[in-house]
Amino acid sequence: MLKISKRGQDMPSSPIRKLVPFAEMATKRGTKVYHLNIGQPDIETPQIMLDAVRHSDFKILEYGHSAGNESYRRKLVKYYKSVDIDIDFTQIVITTGGSEAILFGFMACLDYGDEVIIPEPFYANYHGFAAEAGVEVVTVTSHIANGFALPPIEELEKKITPRTKAIVICNPNNPTGYVYGKEEMKQLGEMVLKHDLFLFCDEAYREFNYEGEMPLSSLNLKGVDNNVIMVDTISKRYSACGGRIGALVTRNKDLVNAVMKFAQARLCPPGFAQIAGEAALDLPADYFDTTKAEYKNRRDLIVKRLNAIKGVNCPKPSGAFYAIAELPIDDADKFCQWLLESFSYNGATVMLAPGTGFYATPGLGKKEVRLAYVLNLTDINAAMDCLEEALKEYKQHTTITADSGVLAEAMYA
Amino acid sequence: MLKISKRGQDMPSSPIRKLVPFAEMATKRGTKVYHLNIGQPDIETPQIMLDAVRHSDFKILEYGHSAGNESYRRKLVKYYKSVDIDIDFTQIVITTGGSEAILFGFMACLDYGDEVIIPEPFYANYHGFAAEAGVEVVTVTSHIANGFALPPIEELEKKITPRTKAIVICNPNNPTGYVYGKEEMKQLGEMVLKHDLFLFCDEAYREFNYEGEMPLSSLNLKGVDNNVIMVDTISKRYSACGGRIGALVTRNKDLVNAVMKFAQARLCPPGFAQIAGEAALDLPADYFDTTKAEYKNRRDLIVKRLNAIKGVNCPKPSGAFYAIAELPIDDADKFCQWLLESFSYNGATVMLAPGTGFYATPGLGKKEVRLAYVLNLTDINAAMDCLEEALKEYKQHTTITADSGVLAEAMYA
Repeated sequence: MLKISKRGQDMPSSPIRKLVPFAEMATKRGTKVYHLNIGQPDIETPQIMLDAVRHSDFKILEYGHSAGNESYRRKLVKYYKSVDIDIDFTQIVITTGGSEAILFGFMACLDYGDEVIIPEPFYANYHGFAAEAGVEVVTVTSHIANGFALPPIEELEKKITPRTKAIVICNPNNPTGYVYGKEEMKQLGEMVLKHDLFLFCDEAYREFNYEGEMPLSSLNLKGVDNNVIMVDTISKRYSACGGRIGALVTRNKDLVNAVMKFAQARLCPPGFAQIAGEAALDLPADYFDTTKAEYKNRRDLIVKRLNAIKGVNCPKPSGAFYAIAELPIDDADKFCQWLLESFSYNGATVMLAPGTGFYATPGLGKKEVRLAYVLNLTDINAAMDCLEEALKEYKQHTTITADSGVLAEAMYA
Repeated sequence: MLKISKRGQDMPSSPIRKLVPFAEMATKRGTKVYHLNIGQPDIETPQIMLDAVRHSDFKILEYGHSAGNESYRRKLVKYYKSVDIDIDFTQIVITTGGSEAILFGFMACLDYGDEVIIPEPFYANYHGFAAEAGVEVVTVTSHIANGFALPPIEELEKKITPRTKAIVICNPNNPTGYVYGKEEMKQLGEMVLKHDLFLFCDEAYREFNYEGEMPLSSLNLKGVDNNVIMVDTISKRYSACGGRIGALVTRNKDLVNAVMKFAQARLCPPGFAQIAGEAALDLPADYFDTTKAEYKNRRDLIVKRLNAIKGVNCPKPSGAFYAIAELPIDDADKFCQWLLESFSYNGATVMLAPGTGFYATPGLGKKEVRLAYVLNLTDINAAMDCLEEALKEYKQHTTITADSGVLAEAMYA
């Protein structure tokens, strides 16, 4: 019998995208769906980026350089300088989204059966890229009680085996919104140096810290130039998710050379969006002020609304545009599906990302959901109205279902 | 010591792209380089495609569907119908170039240590994607003597082991230009059915067959719906290589589901270029007539010029826009590098792809080069003038070098 690969079978489904068919059905029924499930901002892509593509005047959509257009990489050096990161254009490989940067990094740093340590909850697709690279994800759990701070460094060290090759963090964090402090970053730096590990740091949300200055970049940790792989993207920074332009940045020359072989195999990153990415670098220095203020207001509102609902606990996140909330439910996957399948309030419902998808440890996150505050204040209010009402109705629903004996079966199916 | 992965070390360099630094140096010296090394057509991208992007009026460059925009997939169904391929839009996954289609296919069909059989010479990057997927490439050799026809099917069957999971072909073929006939395709179909293998068929050059009708698509082989993965791209068909839009097409539902998990992990294919790809489907039915006529003239010229050079043998390819020629040289890699480093004629030189990069068997292809006839007739003539002159000069050069005893060392370095 012709069978798909074990890897294909084991590859985790995207917890964020697997509910899409239910959302599509809800929309078809005429129910408005508030999308708090995915980091797709409603902020407009800067006009200057779209115009650059629209006013481009080439005649042939040619292959570009495998590392990305040199003009773009050279200009990125100036952007990084503006955020106090000192690198050379040869240390940047432009990738097809941050996604490809992670994948290339895993491919070039880890072998089949190697292990990577990631604090959970974590961005679910890291798991997918690890599966593609044949790499085992080993987690240390961070907790809602302290806002998902970095677990004590000894806990991470305890997980190190001879197969451990790397640590992956995301700062500011998706899905928790936690911003690792300088001390936490330095501890990580010391740890990877001590144990000869690579440190992957996804800095997609660099500009979005609402409580202080920009977080310390992994590239500014001392003495770990060969260890650090910084992953970046234009997706969130400029609300340009569909362009699929990211970057892998490292001062490790051998690693750049290895990554380039993977980059050459896929020829080049997308041409049009590189033009948009390059144009973004002409935005005024105060561009992020408005966006940041807007996200901060949204965060304040969503956290306030969540914590005002009985039984809900949502620590205030400092950065990115996500919050994780604990809800008075037993199974976030079922609840999120139920919201789309069976619930509406004022003709609307809300789509959330079940917490379980962000943990690798089975059983964790069953009471948690991730909310992306990527909608305007009015919509966030309406979405929170829905959620508040839904939790009341769901409680009755599950009580009845539990009484009828069906819940237990459904919950562990 | 912090080390890159074995996979990163073993990953083959692109034989086409590794000479790029030498070409850049030649250009810096003021030498014009005729690029016959890469399948980057000089044909203009249809205006309708570029205009569609330039006249787009969205405000947010959003994530798209992981399988590609539904409108695009639905329209592709009509294109496929026009070339006698009957499929449904749910059987199409839009990918980031044909490259990603191959990678996703390998990931979903093969596990670490599995084997894939590919007739050599083959498109070098298949090797890279196999390395990423941890898959072994096993080859059967096709020969210049019969124009690189499919080797006898028994030879392929001899290579099958319990780990063999797939056969990969490219039709019309890159790098040989050979077009597999109906009988050859049917034999492959019977073979994959008999041995329960997947059949990957890269049909990027479908429209470019200069000697007869369009080749039989793998999707039109009978009884192998679950075995066939057809890989496609807009790159060559519409001279849109930099867009990075391809497709994986299969009627195997389990496979689509598995591929979708890989597709979801990387979120979506590039947004702008999907608009261009969709617009291409509005091109008039006779669009390919001019392009095909142009390529045919180029093929006729380049093959004639090559065979007129003393010691050169170039079988006439039927399709795609490549030819493989055997040259009176001992080491194609050295020769191709020498062309860029040390040679010029009338202020110009020619960049070729060394044959060795297209073979997995060490030692094969050392006298061969691949030429992509992607330049106009005038440039092809000038490039052939260069090559003719270069071969004369190189013969003297290597004779002298050999005399001085340096050649042996250099050749096997």
